[in-house]
Amino acid sequence: MITQLNTDRTLNSKAPAAQPSPVLEYLQQLHTEFAPVKDGKVATYIPELAKANPDWFGISLVTTNGTSYEVGDSRQQFTIQSISKPFVYGLALEDHGRPHVISKVGMEPTGDAFNSISLEPGTGRPRNPMINAGAIATSSLVVGKTAQGRLRRVVEMMSRYAGRDLSLDNEVYRSESETGHRNRAIGHMLRNFDILTTDPIPSVELYFKQCSVSVTAHDLAVMAATLANRGVNPITKQQAIRGEYVESVLSVMGSCGMYDYAGEWIYTIGMPAKSGVAGGIIAVLPGQLGVAVFSPPLDARGNSVRGIKVCDALSRHCDLHILNRPNPGETAIRLKCTGAELSSNRIRTPEESQVLHQGGSRIHLYQLQGNLHFATAETIVHDVMSNLDGIQHLILDFKKVLTVNESACRLLHEVLLKFAALDRIILFTHADHLPLLRRYMKVKLGTRYSELFRSVPENDLALEWSENRIIESSLPTRKDDRPVTRGHYELFKNFSANDLIAIAPLLQRRTYQQGETIINAGDDADELYFLARGGVSVFVPLEGGGRKRLATFTRGMVFGEMAVIDRAPRSAMIVADTEVTCDVLSTANFDGLGTTHPELKIKLLENLCLVLCRRLRMVNRKLSVFD
Amino acid sequence: MITQLNTDRTLNSKAPAAQPSPVLEYLQQLHTEFAPVKDGKVATYIPELAKANPDWFGISLVTTNGTSYEVGDSRQQFTIQSISKPFVYGLALEDHGRPHVISKVGMEPTGDAFNSISLEPGTGRPRNPMINAGAIATSSLVVGKTAQGRLRRVVEMMSRYAGRDLSLDNEVYRSESETGHRNRAIGHMLRNFDILTTDPIPSVELYFKQCSVSVTAHDLAVMAATLANRGVNPITKQQAIRGEYVESVLSVMGSCGMYDYAGEWIYTIGMPAKSGVAGGIIAVLPGQLGVAVFSPPLDARGNSVRGIKVCDALSRHCDLHILNRPNPGETAIRLKCTGAELSSNRIRTPEESQVLHQGGSRIHLYQLQGNLHFATAETIVHDVMSNLDGIQHLILDFKKVLTVNESACRLLHEVLLKFAALDRIILFTHADHLPLLRRYMKVKLGTRYSELFRSVPENDLALEWSENRIIESSLPTRKDDRPVTRGHYELFKNFSANDLIAIAPLLQRRTYQQGETIINAGDDADELYFLARGGVSVFVPLEGGGRKRLATFTRGMVFGEMAVIDRAPRSAMIVADTEVTCDVLSTANFDGLGTTHPELKIKLLENLCLVLCRRLRMVNRKLSVFD
Repeated sequence: MITQLNTDRTLNSKAPAAQPSPVLEYLQQLHTEFAPVKDGKVATYIPELAKANPDWFGISLVTTNGTSYEVGDSRQQFTIQSISKPFVYGLALEDHGRPHVISKVGMEPTGDAFNSISLEPGTGRPRNPMINAGAIATSSLVVGKTAQGRLRRVVEMMSRYAGRDLSLDNEVYRSESETGHRNRAIGHMLRNFDILTTDPIPSVELYFKQCSVSVTAHDLAVMAATLANRGVNPITKQQAIRGEYVESVLSVMGSCGMYDYAGEWIYTIGMPAKSGVAGGIIAVLPGQLGVAVFSPPLDARGNSVRGIKVCDALSRHCDLHILNRPNPGETAIRLKCTGAELSSNRIRTPEESQVLHQGGSRIHLYQLQGNLHFATAETIVHDVMSNLDGIQHLILDFKKVLTVNESACRLLHEVLLKFAALDRIILFTHADHLPLLRRYMKVKLGTRYSELFRSVPENDLALEWSENRIIESSLPTRKDDRPVTRGHYELFKNFSANDLIAIAPLLQRRTYQQGETIINAGDDADELYFLARGGVSVFVPLEGGGRKRLATFTRGMVFGEMAVIDRAPRSAMIVADTEVTCDVLSTANFDGLGTTHPELKIKLLENLCLVLCRRLRMVNRKLSVFD
Repeated sequence: MITQLNTDRTLNSKAPAAQPSPVLEYLQQLHTEFAPVKDGKVATYIPELAKANPDWFGISLVTTNGTSYEVGDSRQQFTIQSISKPFVYGLALEDHGRPHVISKVGMEPTGDAFNSISLEPGTGRPRNPMINAGAIATSSLVVGKTAQGRLRRVVEMMSRYAGRDLSLDNEVYRSESETGHRNRAIGHMLRNFDILTTDPIPSVELYFKQCSVSVTAHDLAVMAATLANRGVNPITKQQAIRGEYVESVLSVMGSCGMYDYAGEWIYTIGMPAKSGVAGGIIAVLPGQLGVAVFSPPLDARGNSVRGIKVCDALSRHCDLHILNRPNPGETAIRLKCTGAELSSNRIRTPEESQVLHQGGSRIHLYQLQGNLHFATAETIVHDVMSNLDGIQHLILDFKKVLTVNESACRLLHEVLLKFAALDRIILFTHADHLPLLRRYMKVKLGTRYSELFRSVPENDLALEWSENRIIESSLPTRKDDRPVTRGHYELFKNFSANDLIAIAPLLQRRTYQQGETIINAGDDADELYFLARGGVSVFVPLEGGGRKRLATFTRGMVFGEMAVIDRAPRSAMIVADTEVTCDVLSTANFDGLGTTHPELKIKLLENLCLVLCRRLRMVNRKLSVFD
C-alpha cells in the first residue's frame, strides 16, 4: 500500500517528509475506516473486469491550487468506464457548441438505471448523456476524419485532464466489444431515430474504447480537479476544455451522473459526480477540489460501495455540499481608506499638508481582492454608491484581484459613467493582469476610453495625482520654478539674517539635469542637500525588477540628511525629477559648525528633529490604516 | 409601476436618491426587455387565479448582505402556491430530522409533471417533496396540536423568511379547496400506503392553505436570500431555519424544483429554484443572493414565462451558474510575514534588535480572512506545513475571518498537535468572535487545552511574547531590575564623565508605581524622561473603547521627547508597566543648556536624531509589509 504526499505544489520539498499533512492523515483515516467493508460485488459482465482484486482501495484528493493527496492503491490502473462520459460530452460541446449537442442529447434525469435506453418519446433523443444511449450519441459527435483520429482526440483530451499520456487497456476493450450487444442495439435504435445519421457501429466502438482508457485514482482526481478549476489542469496549468463548457459538463454530472441514485447523491453528498463499473468514482467541488476513489466492489446500482462511503464521509466531515456555501460578506473590499489617512509618498509642504488634511478625505482608495463576479462586484458598487456624496476621486486597486468576469466589468463600467456624469474621477491601479477589464472598457467606452479609463501603475501615483488636483483647486496656482531663498529652507527655520550670512560660505551651490542621479545606493554619506529649485525622488530597487518610490521632495526641503546622523552608506538612490538646484553642506562643514557656530548647529539639529518627527507621524498614520 | 432602491443596508440614506445603483438599472433593463413578451397563459384552474392581470411583472434581487433591489410590480400581492413546498419541507426537517422525513418522501427527480402522482413502486413513498404528492406528505409532517396550530407554525415560519407578517388569501384558499379533488385523491392514496397514518384531509387542507399565503416578489426575494444566507434573513438577521437543513431544501429545489424542466433548468440557469402557478418564481445562489420574479402568464409546464426569461438572462449576464465558481486561490491567507519584518511595538535595545534581526524570521504571522472551510483551511495548512522547517512561533490572526466551520477547526487542531510534538508554538489572535473554534479545541484538546490553545487578544502582544522567547534563548538572562547608570541612556551616548557631571544637576529623579499614569493626553509638554529602571507603555484610546499600545520603552530609553521638539500638548498617555525610576529634564533646563553647555546640547540633539531615525526605519519596515 502506498501512502504518499505528492508535493507538486511544494517548492520546499524537504519539509513535509517527517510531518505528513493533516489532510493526508485524514484521508488515511478514511481508508482505514472503510477498507474492512466487504459489501458489494466486482462487476462480472465482462471477464476482464471480473479479474479485479476486491481489496484494491485508493483515494486521491487534488485541490484547484494543485496540491495533491493520495492514500492506498491510488496508483493502481483500472479502466475509466462510464467516468469517460462527462469528459467526452465536454469534447462534443467544444466540437459543435451547445445547441447542436442538445438537439442530439437531452439533459433531463430519468430516475432509471445506467443501461436503460430512455429515449424521448417522439424525437428518440436520449434523455441525457450519462446513460449509455446518450453517451453513444455523444461519442458520435466527436469530430475526426477517421475512427483512429476520433479516438486519438478523445485520448488526448483525457490526457490533458490527467496531465499525463493515457492509453487504452486493449484486453478490456476487446472484452467490452465482444459482449456489447445491448450497446449495439442502442446504437441501431439511435440510428433509427436519426440521432445517429451514419453507421452506428463505429460510434459504439469509439464508446467501448473511451471506456477502456486506463487510469488511476490519482489521474481521476486530477481530472476532477481540472473540472473544478474551470477546465485548467491545476498541476500542469494546461487548458483541457474551454471554461465556458465546464458548467454544462458538471450540470449533467450533477443531475444525472449517478443514474437512479442522482437525486439522493446531490441531497446527501452534494457534489457533481460520476462513477464507472470498474470501481472508479469522481466528485467535483467547483472552484475548490476534485476527489476520486477506486474500489471495485459495486452496489446494486453499479456504484463503488467504498467509493460512495468515502465521498459521503468526506462531504459530511468537510462540509463539501455545493449548496452549503457561506456568505462571502464584503470580502471583495480588502481595505478602504481616504487620502487623509493614506497619503502619497510626495512629501508635502506644511501649507499643502494643511489642504490635504481636509481635502484628502475626498480621495477614497478601495483595495479590492479575490474573484470579482456579480455578487462581489455588487458589494463594491453598493458601497461606492452609498458613499457617493463624499467621493471626488475614487482609486480602485486591483492588485489582489484574481479574476474579473464580464458582469463585474459591466457594473464597474456603469459606475465609471456615473462618476463622469458627476464630474468625478475614477483611477484604476494594478489592473495590468486583467486584460478583460481593459478590453471591456475599450469596447464599451469607445472614444471616451482614454478619457475615462485612467489606469495608473500604482496607488502612490494615483494618490499623488489626486492630491495634486485637490491642492491645485485650493491653493493659488504658483507654477513658480524660481529657486527659493535660503530663508525658506525647512532646516533654516528661525535662522536670522546673520545666521544665513554665517552659513553661506559653507554651502556649495550645485545643479542637476532632469533624470540625473544625485545619490547612488552604497555611496558614502558625506553631504546634506537643501533643495532650492525642482524636485527629487528617492527610489529603492524592487525584487521583481523595477523600482519603488519612497519619497519625493520639493524646494525648501532637505534630503540626504542621514549623512549627518548615522553616516552609514546611502541606502537608496536619489534622482532629479526636474532640473534641480541644491545647496550642499558637507559633513565636514556640518561638524565644524559645532565649534565655530554652536548656536547655528543647535538650530539646525532642532529643525532636523522637527522634520524627522513630521515624517514619523506621517508614516505612523499610514501604518494605522493597515491595522 | 414602482422602481425603487430599497436602502435597508444603506446607512447614509441621502446618497443614492439621484444616482440609482447600476444593479437596479440593470434589473430595469431586463424589465423593459421582457415586459412586451406576451406568451403564456394565466392559470385558470381556479377562478381566483384567473383574475390575475397578465401584465403584472415584478423583479426583485436581494443579496446575502441584505441589499435589496426591485423593479416593476415587485410589491403586488399574489399567492405563493408551490413555492411554499421547499419552505414547508424545511420545517418538516426541523420537526423530525432528515431520516424520518426521507422515510416518508424521497428526493429523486421524476421527469414528470407537477401534478403527477409519482409514488415509488412498493413503498408508495412520493418520489420527491416538490410534486404535489410529496408536498402533501410533507405538510402532514408539520408538528402541531391542532390544524390551526400547524397552520400558524407554517405561516410564522414563512414570515421569518420574509421578514414581515404574512397572511392567507382566503379567497384563493376557498377556491383551491373547492376544486382540489385530485389532491384529495393523492391524500387518500398516501393514506393507503401508510405514508399518511391519519385522516389525510387535514393535511390536504393545510397544503391548500400554505399555497394560499399571500406574498410579493420582494418577499420572495428576501425568502430566497434567506436560503442563500444559510437560513438567516439577511435584513432582519432572524434565523428562519436551522442552517444544517438549508442544503437539503436547496437540494430538492435543485434536482426537482422545476418539475420536468429541472434538468434543463440546472443546465442552463444553474440555480436551485421553485415556481408557483400564480406566476412567482424564486432562484437561489447559495452564499450570494436570492432572486424572485412575478409574472402570471405560464408556459405549458406551469412555469412563469417572463420569470424563466429573466432568470435565464440574469444567469447568463451575471454568470450565476452554481457550478461555475472561480478558484478562490489562496485568498484565505490575507498576509504573511515574519517577525523580522513586522515587530511588536516594544522598542528594543540595539542588542535585542540584533538578535531579532536574525531570530525574528522564525516568527511567522499569518493573517487569515474570509470563511474558513475545508478548501480554504487546506491552503493555510498546506502553506504552514510547507514552511514548517522555518517556523518556531506561528501566529494565526483571525481578525478578518468571517466564519470557521468544523472541518477547518479539525485541520487547525491537527496542526496544533504537530507543532506541540515538535516543541513549537502556535498563538491565536483576534479569535474571540469564533466561539466554535474555542469550543472545538476545548473538546479535542481536553486537559491540554490551556497549554496548547494560546489565544492572545492582538498581534502586537503575540509578537512581543514570541520575540521575548527568542531573545531569552539568545541573550544571557539578565533579570536585573536595578537602575542603569546615566552613561547607559541612549541620549547620553558619547557623553564623557565630565558631561555626565555637568548635566546631573539639571536632572530630577522621580519614581512611579506600577500602573501609574506618567503623562496624560492633553498635558503640557514640558519634560523629557530618561528611563533608569522599569518599563512604560504609550497608549491611545480606540474608537470602539479600549486602548491601543503604540510603544513600550525599557530602561536606558528616552520618552516624552516631543516636549523638546515641537512642544505641542501630549498626544498620548504614558503609563508605568512596572515600578519605574526616571530622570526628568525640564524643557527650561534643556533650553538653558544651549547657553551654558552648547556642546552637550549638540550631543543630545544628535543622539535624538539617531533615535528618531531608528524609529522611522522600524515603522517604514513595518509599512512595507502591507504594501
